[in-house]
Amino acid sequence: MPYELYYWDGLQGRGEFIRLALEEAGVEYVDVAREQGTGRGVKAMMKILKSRTEPQLPFAPPFLKDGNLILSHVANILFYLGPKLNLAPKNENLRLIANGLQLTITDFIAEVHDTHHPIATTQYYEDQKGAAKLRAKDFIEHRMPKFLDYFERILHQNPDGKEHAISNTLTYVDLSLFQIFEGLRYAFPRATANLTKDYPALGALHDKVANLPNIQAYLRSDRRLDFNTSGIFRHYPELDQDA
Amino acid sequence: MPYELYYWDGLQGRGEFIRLALEEAGVEYVDVAREQGTGRGVKAMMKILKSRTEPQLPFAPPFLKDGNLILSHVANILFYLGPKLNLAPKNENLRLIANGLQLTITDFIAEVHDTHHPIATTQYYEDQKGAAKLRAKDFIEHRMPKFLDYFERILHQNPDGKEHAISNTLTYVDLSLFQIFEGLRYAFPRATANLTKDYPALGALHDKVANLPNIQAYLRSDRRLDFNTSGIFRHYPELDQDA
Repeated sequence: MPYELYYWDGLQGRGEFIRLALEEAGVEYVDVAREQGTGRGVKAMMKILKSRTEPQLPFAPPFLKDGNLILSHVANILFYLGPKLNLAPKNENLRLIANGLQLTITDFIAEVHDTHHPIATTQYYEDQKGAAKLRAKDFIEHRMPKFLDYFERILHQNPDGKEHAISNTLTYVDLSLFQIFEGLRYAFPRATANLTKDYPALGALHDKVANLPNIQAYLRSDRRLDFNTSGIFRHYPELDQDA
Repeated sequence: MPYELYYWDGLQGRGEFIRLALEEAGVEYVDVAREQGTGRGVKAMMKILKSRTEPQLPFAPPFLKDGNLILSHVANILFYLGPKLNLAPKNENLRLIANGLQLTITDFIAEVHDTHHPIATTQYYEDQKGAAKLRAKDFIEHRMPKFLDYFERILHQNPDGKEHAISNTLTYVDLSLFQIFEGLRYAFPRATANLTKDYPALGALHDKVANLPNIQAYLRSDRRLDFNTSGIFRHYPELDQDA
């Protein structure tokens, strides 16, 4: 039975980190809300989320169904899929370190989200624009460099070489770092003008991932949606500023 | 060699979720920054965080050292410690479900933090009070009930009984849910006035955990610091409101 990915249609969002792993591995999966039509697919997703009997209840999408197992949270799903997709380190301890890295990526993504929604996810961006401007400024000046410096160090301090975040093989962490680079460039083109110069190892990893045959095919397919202002990474020119 | 927990002195913070597990298990551990004196202990912590050679580099405290292994992120540390401390389900899949629950707790904690720091962690609360008031209002009216409803359902939908979040034994998830109850009551006494009535299963779990002999001893010890306005859960009367 193919993996079933449950996530909103119409945006990359958090689901994209899982899609990239499934696509790179070339395994069969169903992107439920997209493939079954927004109506039927989202209905199937909501049925699980609203279930009053399901013991493996997710708090929110994305979640993954593998047979009878339902797993939620990007990092948890990737921790589970990693070894099956040959996208995790072989060593047990390194897998936990990889999980720690992915959780730092999770935190970073939450901060990216909060640049446009600092007050309330239940309200429109337009209704929290003032606070968003302040938060985005702090993000660009303090948080983004802090996280990117860290990931650049992770590559440099990898004893197996700076081509990968962990171990000497491609892991889901590398794929997620690629996605962060892509997303930041879309959302903040001015602030990220010197990204590759400032973070050369991350830049090289980004290019390497972009050129993996399976990833390349995916990025060119209609399964890869464009970034847009429904996702985590949103381009609002007024939130961007020069590097 | 005892476990070494690295976290800031002077507050419960995110480190508390790990302390509760170590204390309940009754294992030996060193709370480095506290026990070695803030000067020497924090210096040891910063040495790891600032290392230019350490491959297992944490982004931020808390992190755990077990021999040569350094693990960061609360959920990751608890996933690792859980089976060793006999605070995780026996079944492999259930351990992943437990990890998913802990990651929802992580997200909730981040939202609690952002009630007093919605704009910038680098700025004082006093400098973002206006936005904090808005975010706290949304948290109390929308986010807190959404998360607590979810956790209450998790207990009710546990096929092994609503005494535990997962499986039929005490896990680190139960201990974390106890801590959330404690923290919310401290931070938002007005908004949480009916907590036990509104969330009876969570209330019962809270009381059960509070009465575990090891936890009881810990809560009465000077190792349990009081909640204060340096931690995640902060009591600022102006951010509270009636339920």
